[in-house]
Amino acid sequence: MDLKTLIRTIPDFPEEGVLFRDITPVLQDSEGLKAAINQMQDCFKDIDFDLIVGPESRGFIFGVPLAYNLNKGFIPVRKKGKLPYNTIQKEYALEYGTAIVEMHIDAIKPGQKIVVVDDLLATGGTSKAIVDLVEEAGGEIIKLIYLIELKALKGREVLKGYNVESIIKY
Amino acid sequence: MDLKTLIRTIPDFPEEGVLFRDITPVLQDSEGLKAAINQMQDCFKDIDFDLIVGPESRGFIFGVPLAYNLNKGFIPVRKKGKLPYNTIQKEYALEYGTAIVEMHIDAIKPGQKIVVVDDLLATGGTSKAIVDLVEEAGGEIIKLIYLIELKALKGREVLKGYNVESIIKY
Repeated sequence: MDLKTLIRTIPDFPEEGVLFRDITPVLQDSEGLKAAINQMQDCFKDIDFDLIVGPESRGFIFGVPLAYNLNKGFIPVRKKGKLPYNTIQKEYALEYGTAIVEMHIDAIKPGQKIVVVDDLLATGGTSKAIVDLVEEAGGEIIKLIYLIELKALKGREVLKGYNVESIIKY
Repeated sequence: MDLKTLIRTIPDFPEEGVLFRDITPVLQDSEGLKAAINQMQDCFKDIDFDLIVGPESRGFIFGVPLAYNLNKGFIPVRKKGKLPYNTIQKEYALEYGTAIVEMHIDAIKPGQKIVVVDDLLATGGTSKAIVDLVEEAGGEIIKLIYLIELKALKGREVLKGYNVESIIKY
């Protein structure tokens, strides 16, 4: 299935000049959802890993079914203040200002092999923050897998040296 | 598997006097994640439905793998301002103040049969707002399914008349 046919492009969201790639029509179509997850699952072929890490909230959409299908656990990375137990944090730059993401301090054991899953690779800012959190916890980043990649925003440069794969490219 | 053995209770989160039931140890345990989703999936036996609706962000954690497994689509309900296309909204009361949840205006077609999935039934405020959104869109609520129910908060009273099932009760 060509998933691009199900993605809706919304001009000027969340701000003027941005073309937002809306995945909700993929999710609400049973065959689209199946295909999106199956195509991302193909990116796990030939890799050995322990856990999937995904950021709130669209990383949960793809990360959890992939963890379920592949018989692995799932680690949520959340915005500051949402995780109830002790956390490690990472601040990263947004277009205006900064944001903080957190992961539970006991989520990853040193040496565990981690795959990061998210819906979108844009500037790579969130992904790099997640990579830093995982490595601070002693985890090893095996791969980063995305449904969509916005090539013009050059997220791969921020993630240079890591194994990055995406399904749909704009 | 008795999932209660994997749930971590955090006192005084997010505020003093609250016992927070932390599901992250369930998610990060491959067998726990499998069991949680499989046990929720058992709640779908003998019901006929078209779509799963789940709220940001922990509703995504269980709603998407269940939709995938059952060959259905998934509709995200999100906090105000997160969905890029035209939405319908519902304001609901929190302990202090109010919150607004949104659903895309074209997410549900009139007559479609909807199951709501979330991690937690507490006061039922979010769930009732979702029920109202679904019904405003012309959908029919078939069932509401939760991993955890906090019985003392009496969410079932707010959802009286609806088919409610939960896996773990406190």
